[in-house]
Amino acid sequence: MRFKLPLLAIGLEVAMIVLFALFVHYETDHNVHQQINTTTPGAVDKFLVSYALFQDVHVMIFVGFGFLMTFLKKYGFSSVGINLFIAALGLQWGTLIRGILHHHNQEIHVEIENMINADFSTATVLISFGAVLGKISPIQMLIMTIIEITVFIGNEYLVGEIFKASDIGASMTIHAFGAYFGLAAAGILYRPGLRKEHDNEESVYHSDLFAMIGTLFLWIFWPSFNSAIADAGEKQYRAIINTYFSLAACVVTAYAFSSLVEHRGKLDMVHIQNATLAGGVAVGTCADMEIYPYISMIIGSIAAMVSVLGFKFLTVYPGHASSCTRFFHWNSSWWRADHRFNSKATYLGTAT
Amino acid sequence: MRFKLPLLAIGLEVAMIVLFALFVHYETDHNVHQQINTTTPGAVDKFLVSYALFQDVHVMIFVGFGFLMTFLKKYGFSSVGINLFIAALGLQWGTLIRGILHHHNQEIHVEIENMINADFSTATVLISFGAVLGKISPIQMLIMTIIEITVFIGNEYLVGEIFKASDIGASMTIHAFGAYFGLAAAGILYRPGLRKEHDNEESVYHSDLFAMIGTLFLWIFWPSFNSAIADAGEKQYRAIINTYFSLAACVVTAYAFSSLVEHRGKLDMVHIQNATLAGGVAVGTCADMEIYPYISMIIGSIAAMVSVLGFKFLTVYPGHASSCTRFFHWNSSWWRADHRFNSKATYLGTAT
Amino acid sequence: MRFKLPLLAIGLEVAMIVLFALFVHYETDHNVHQQINTTTPGAVDKFLVSYALFQDVHVMIFVGFGFLMTFLKKYGFSSVGINLFIAALGLQWGTLIRGILHHHNQEIHVEIENMINADFSTATVLISFGAVLGKISPIQMLIMTIIEITVFIGNEYLVGEIFKASDIGASMTIHAFGAYFGLAAAGILYRPGLRKEHDNEESVYHSDLFAMIGTLFLWIFWPSFNSAIADAGEKQYRAIINTYFSLAACVVTAYAFSSLVEHRGKLDMVHIQNATLAGGVAVGTCADMEIYPYISMIIGSIAAMVSVLGFKFLTVYPGHASSCTRFFHWNSSWWRADHRFNSKATYLGTAT
Repeated sequence: MRFKLPLLAIGLEVAMIVLFALFVHYETDHNVHQQINTTTPGAVDKFLVSYALFQDVHVMIFVGFGFLMTFLKKYGFSSVGINLFIAALGLQWGTLIRGILHHHNQEIHVEIENMINADFSTATVLISFGAVLGKISPIQMLIMTIIEITVFIGNEYLVGEIFKASDIGASMTIHAFGAYFGLAAAGILYRPGLRKEHDNEESVYHSDLFAMIGTLFLWIFWPSFNSAIADAGEKQYRAIINTYFSLAACVVTAYAFSSLVEHRGKLDMVHIQNATLAGGVAVGTCADMEIYPYISMIIGSIAAMVSVLGFKFLTVYPGHASSCTRFFHWNSSWWRADHRFNSKATYLGTAT
Repeated sequence: MRFKLPLLAIGLEVAMIVLFALFVHYETDHNVHQQINTTTPGAVDKFLVSYALFQDVHVMIFVGFGFLMTFLKKYGFSSVGINLFIAALGLQWGTLIRGILHHHNQEIHVEIENMINADFSTATVLISFGAVLGKISPIQMLIMTIIEITVFIGNEYLVGEIFKASDIGASMTIHAFGAYFGLAAAGILYRPGLRKEHDNEESVYHSDLFAMIGTLFLWIFWPSFNSAIADAGEKQYRAIINTYFSLAACVVTAYAFSSLVEHRGKLDMVHIQNATLAGGVAVGTCADMEIYPYISMIIGSIAAMVSVLGFKFLTVYPGHASSCTRFFHWNSSWWRADHRFNSKATYLGTAT
Repeated sequence: MRFKLPLLAIGLEVAMIVLFALFVHYETDHNVHQQINTTTPGAVDKFLVSYALFQDVHVMIFVGFGFLMTFLKKYGFSSVGINLFIAALGLQWGTLIRGILHHHNQEIHVEIENMINADFSTATVLISFGAVLGKISPIQMLIMTIIEITVFIGNEYLVGEIFKASDIGASMTIHAFGAYFGLAAAGILYRPGLRKEHDNEESVYHSDLFAMIGTLFLWIFWPSFNSAIADAGEKQYRAIINTYFSLAACVVTAYAFSSLVEHRGKLDMVHIQNATLAGGVAVGTCADMEIYPYISMIIGSIAAMVSVLGFKFLTVYPGHASSCTRFFHWNSSWWRADHRFNSKATYLGTAT
């Protein structure tokens, strides 16, 4: 029994190494020379821009998501520790699956963009993780990581390549998908007996401050998340600006509604830790479009409002952790429905 | 009564959205094409450099200032939570006011530099916030944010555009201004009865470690703060180098003087959390000039010395929080007087 | 007695300022114009890339190493506070010594690369610091900083310039050197009486979460550490990719072995905080070579394995802190032996 986890993890890592040996190469010299060449400055830029944006996303995945769930006083180690474990496994698997699907040949050529996409594919598992924290064993978590990333990349391929829907910040494919997958997993793992373990779902003063580390690094770098894979130039610039203002408006509205719904007008740390990020998710799908800053701010404000009200008034499964994820992403799923139309419009727009 | 805060916040956000709809646009296609164009690599650079520096400043504003004040054991949430609230509101207001003042036309064209300046304008409020933490209600805080940013941007315009004084790291306009504004506000809010609430102003072990997160991120990225709006090239390079060495010398001197003035030669965490940053403020005004690294180090050392001695021997209003801000910025105000001459010299220098 | 530390620190800082005044200048206008010129975009890039990588390394040094040792519940302030002190002193001294050795003339011209190397030279002291934390006074620490950086830079010059060994991530010169130096210092400072102070070497729940801040920022930015001084282009790109995958494989293997050797299959936070980083150290020496990602992953996995087993089964000096450093770096020293051959091969390779 106690050897199950180590043997599974070692087995998976050995499999990764074998698959990497067979399929994964550097960008070939020819391609590298075109892309990374000190005598062609434009190409160097692209490499370096990508790396700076990659590092912002990397901080979000490992510090942001890692600390976001530390507010549960008994799951601090699980949150930050298991987050690192599954993200490290997931990025290897994501590199492979995405490489196989997107390159259509015998070799996967790794460059910075693959690393950004590998990090993205772990994000979906980390979002689902929030819904099942405290209900799932590390072994189940590893299996869920492998399955979810495979399904995610298939779905992303479908949305992006077949339907050609616009989803630059991956709000649909990462956030809504991750939330639903997590809810489904939580539903399967749900046992009524767990209802009593309510005391594990409280937070203490310092654990809430640790969670703020996660929140703030996610909030700060979200413009990089939404622009990391956008086309360089105007689209990337608009993705940054739109996300910046959407998040700012989202914070003000989240605080206002938190104070409105809470007892005696106090602020609730759970709203502050989660609803403040809803603006980044909500604007994600259309961040690179010419929607103007004030529309971004309206999107961010509505996202914050829906997120706080969802936290407060909707609870399907018992427990803080699951409700947390659910209503953070209920919000994003609400937006998904809305953006389905936006996406279609964009599709028509880009097709023109 | 309990609806005051939410209604004020919602009202302000609605006003922001309306004003943004009326005035704020992206950089027009024409301008963007000149500035952000993948076929003209030099232009791409500028965009990307700016974004990397912006993200450093962004971390300082939200993680740096947010965690700096968490050392007060009962104000951890207030510090990091209200910091996020007022900074998110302030950056929207700052974008508007600065845009109106600096563009002199009907439209504000937002680019990365506007985002850096919007973040800068919130810094001044966050510094004042340190002086009034625990004495001010969130409602008063919101009103102070709107007023202070308006006055700050007017003052900055006066100093930079009319007097043409050099203040690249904005030590005068941001730090000294923010400190005095905060002291004035604390003076107005000061009531003798608060003298007894001294126990709220203590720190506990872990709250001091949280504060070090703020200190370290401010310390690390201060070279970016002082160089973010400097002219690309030599001036930006000098601003980085000078700030780097000023901060290094500042730390060594701050530790030496902390040990010198403390009981039995021990180090005081309050000095370490604050005086180590004085070098960044002090060198700010002249960071882009050719002052040579050793002069930066002398400036950093004197700043640390004045800051530690100020903390230790000067206390005007009672209370840790206010004294904290005061003497951190007493230092910068001391420098302000000094730099008034420097600035004049620079003015003559640049006029030549 | 109580004036020893402040007087030593002030004396050192005054000496630094005098030496900087005599030797340290900016890159001269002529050189700067070649390197940092907005009209030659390729040159601007180099400057900016370097600065982004420098900031990643800067975060590792001050936040990463600073918080890594906070897991010792009574040494949280010492860890993060003394780390800042010795790193700030060390980077000034490192700039001087390295400048004198590498420029062979009367003037040291500071640019971003000098700042990266100055930060690097402090890393070796911070690694040694881990072995002596709780056994050493601040005065001894300052003296050790000055001595160790001098020896380190001499050794680095020998390895890099005379032997021309490849060591791009400085695994040998920084990590193995720092570990051995620290062990030697711990051996000198070791007194049997300290064996009883075992209770100071425990961790508490929150101190382990603080340590994870250090671990995660080191882990995230290690690709920047291993590529910061690599040749721009292909080599830098390979150093990033190899380190990224080595670290990912290292995490999965470290968790597997931690669970394997621990009681009832539980995970040990000390392994997670340290063994997860072994992959970055291990791949450092050869990160810029064309070793292919799967070899990086094998290196990372073996490093994790050796690190966890070393922590578990080898204890030479008593105490958590010293064992911690020792076996984290036992691992790197093990690799050192191995890489001596790699290095030779590289030497032959580059000589061809």
